[in-house]
Amino acid sequence: MKAITRIEHSLAAAVAASEDASCPPKLAGAIRHAVFPGGARIRPQLCLAVAQACGMDDPELADAAAVSIEFLHCASLVHDDLPCFDDAPVRRGRASVHWAFGQPLAVLAGDALIVLAFHTLARAAGKSPARLPGLLDIVAAGSGMPSGIVAGQGWESESRVSLVDYQRAKTGALFVAATMAGAKAAGSDPTPWLGLGNWLGEAYQVADDIRDVAADPRLLGKPIGQDALLGRPTAAAELGLTGAIHHFNQLIANASASIPECAGADQLRELVRLESERLVPLAMSQALMRDTAAAA
Amino acid sequence: MKAITRIEHSLAAAVAASEDASCPPKLAGAIRHAVFPGGARIRPQLCLAVAQACGMDDPELADAAAVSIEFLHCASLVHDDLPCFDDAPVRRGRASVHWAFGQPLAVLAGDALIVLAFHTLARAAGKSPARLPGLLDIVAAGSGMPSGIVAGQGWESESRVSLVDYQRAKTGALFVAATMAGAKAAGSDPTPWLGLGNWLGEAYQVADDIRDVAADPRLLGKPIGQDALLGRPTAAAELGLTGAIHHFNQLIANASASIPECAGADQLRELVRLESERLVPLAMSQALMRDTAAAA
Repeated sequence: MKAITRIEHSLAAAVAASEDASCPPKLAGAIRHAVFPGGARIRPQLCLAVAQACGMDDPELADAAAVSIEFLHCASLVHDDLPCFDDAPVRRGRASVHWAFGQPLAVLAGDALIVLAFHTLARAAGKSPARLPGLLDIVAAGSGMPSGIVAGQGWESESRVSLVDYQRAKTGALFVAATMAGAKAAGSDPTPWLGLGNWLGEAYQVADDIRDVAADPRLLGKPIGQDALLGRPTAAAELGLTGAIHHFNQLIANASASIPECAGADQLRELVRLESERLVPLAMSQALMRDTAAAA
Repeated sequence: MKAITRIEHSLAAAVAASEDASCPPKLAGAIRHAVFPGGARIRPQLCLAVAQACGMDDPELADAAAVSIEFLHCASLVHDDLPCFDDAPVRRGRASVHWAFGQPLAVLAGDALIVLAFHTLARAAGKSPARLPGLLDIVAAGSGMPSGIVAGQGWESESRVSLVDYQRAKTGALFVAATMAGAKAAGSDPTPWLGLGNWLGEAYQVADDIRDVAADPRLLGKPIGQDALLGRPTAAAELGLTGAIHHFNQLIANASASIPECAGADQLRELVRLESERLVPLAMSQALMRDTAAAA
C-alpha cells in the first residue's frame, strides 16, 4: 500500500473511533471537515518514512504516531484560522472550519483533535508499551509549551520576536516531532533524526513565506499576501525573494545531508527531493530569480 | 501534607516544567492565570482520594493523574468563557483569561493545557509504565469525543439535546475520569469507581444549576442567571428549585452508597459529605425550600 493511502486509512479509522451514535453530530462533522480531505500530509509521510528507515517492527504504533502528528497539525490550522488569529475564510481550497461550522465548533474541533492525537497513541501501544512515554514526550514537546507549535503561535502575541525562535516553534517543532516519533515508534534512538526535522521544518516555513508572496492563490488553496497584511516576520521580508529562494535550497541540501546512514536513507532523500520540488517548483524559483535579476 | 497543598505543589511543578527562558512570556502568563489561584480543586482531590483508597503505591503517578484532570478542567473553563461561548468576563472572582490576555492567548492557553495534561502523565510513568495506556485512555475519554467534556460543550451547538447526555458529557465525564484515573494510577481496576464519578458529576451539575438561579454572585465568583440567559437546559428549569434540591440530595446519597468497600471508604464518604455541603450549603437549601413552600 502506498504511504499516502495507508495514512488516509489510519486517519479515517482514528476519527471513526472517536465517534459513536450518541456523540454531538455537528462537532463530529466539524472534526471530519478539519481532517478530510487533507493537504499534502507531509508530516505523517515523513514520520512513516523515518519509521520505515528504522526497521518499523511495530507498524500499528508507527501509523498511530503519524496520525497523532497530523491531528495536531489539523488542530493548529483550525485554531489559527479563527477570527482572533488569521480570520481565514478558506483552507485547503474550501471553507475553513469556523466559516463552515461557526466559531464554537471550530474551537471544540481543535480541542477534540488535540485529545484524539494522544488517545490514538495510547490505543496503539499494546505491542510496545515501553515506547509510549518517550513517544508522548516527543509529540507533546512538538505541540505544546515551551517550544511546540502552540508556543510558536503564542509568539504572534509578543511585541519582540526572534524570527528563528518563532518559526522553529511554529512550524519546525512538529517536523522534528514527526521524524523523532517515527524513529521512536520503530524502537530506535530518536536523537539522530532531530536534524532532518529541523532542516525540513525551516525549509517548509521559508517555502510558505515565498509562496505567500509569489504564488497563484488558486493553486495555493488559500489567500496570498497574508504575512505582510498581518505584519508577521518572514524570511521573504528579511532576505528578499531571491535570498529566500537561495536559503530554501540550502536548507533542503542540509536536510538531505543530515539523514543518518540506514537502510532507507536513499528513499528518504528521494522524499526530501520530491517535497522540495512540490514546495517551491523549480520553474517558479527560476522565474522569480530571473525577474529579480532583471529588475535589479 | 494536606491533599490540597499537595495538589497545588504538583500543579505548580507541572506548569513550571512547561516553561523555559525562551518561551513566549505572555502565553506563559495566560496559562498561569488559568490555573492559579484555582477553585475548589474537587476533581484532583477526588482523584487522589480514590488513589489513596486503592493503596497509592505510586504517588508520583497519582499526582500526575490528578494534575492532568485539573489541567483539562482549567482548559475547558478558559475556552468555555470565550466570547463565542459564554462571553464571561469573570471567573473565580477575577478577570477570565480572554478578558485579561485577549482571545488569541486564551485559545492558546487552553490548547497548551490540554497538551500539558497528557505530557504530565507521560513524564510520571517511569515507575509504572504498564499503567500509562489505560490512564491515558481514561483521561482522553473524559475530555474528548465522543462523550468527554469537549463533546459535552459541543451539545450546546445542537438544536435537539438530551439533558442527561449533555450534562453527563459536559460535567460528569471528567468526574468519572477523576475517580477511574485515581484507581488506575494505584494499579487497581478502575471499573468499580465509575459509579462514584457519575453520581458526583451529576450532583455537581445540579448544584451548579441551583446556584446559577439562587446564589449570591459575589460569593460564587461569577455572574448568575447565565443558564437562562444562554437558553441552556438545566435541572432547575426542568424540575423547579425544590425538585432540583431534592434531586441533588439523592445524587449525593447515591454517590456515598456507590463507594466500593476498601480501606479508605470512610474517608471518601467524608469527602463526599463535605463537598455536598460546600456545593449547596444546608442553610441555603433549607431557606430555598421554605421560600418555595411559602410561595405555594
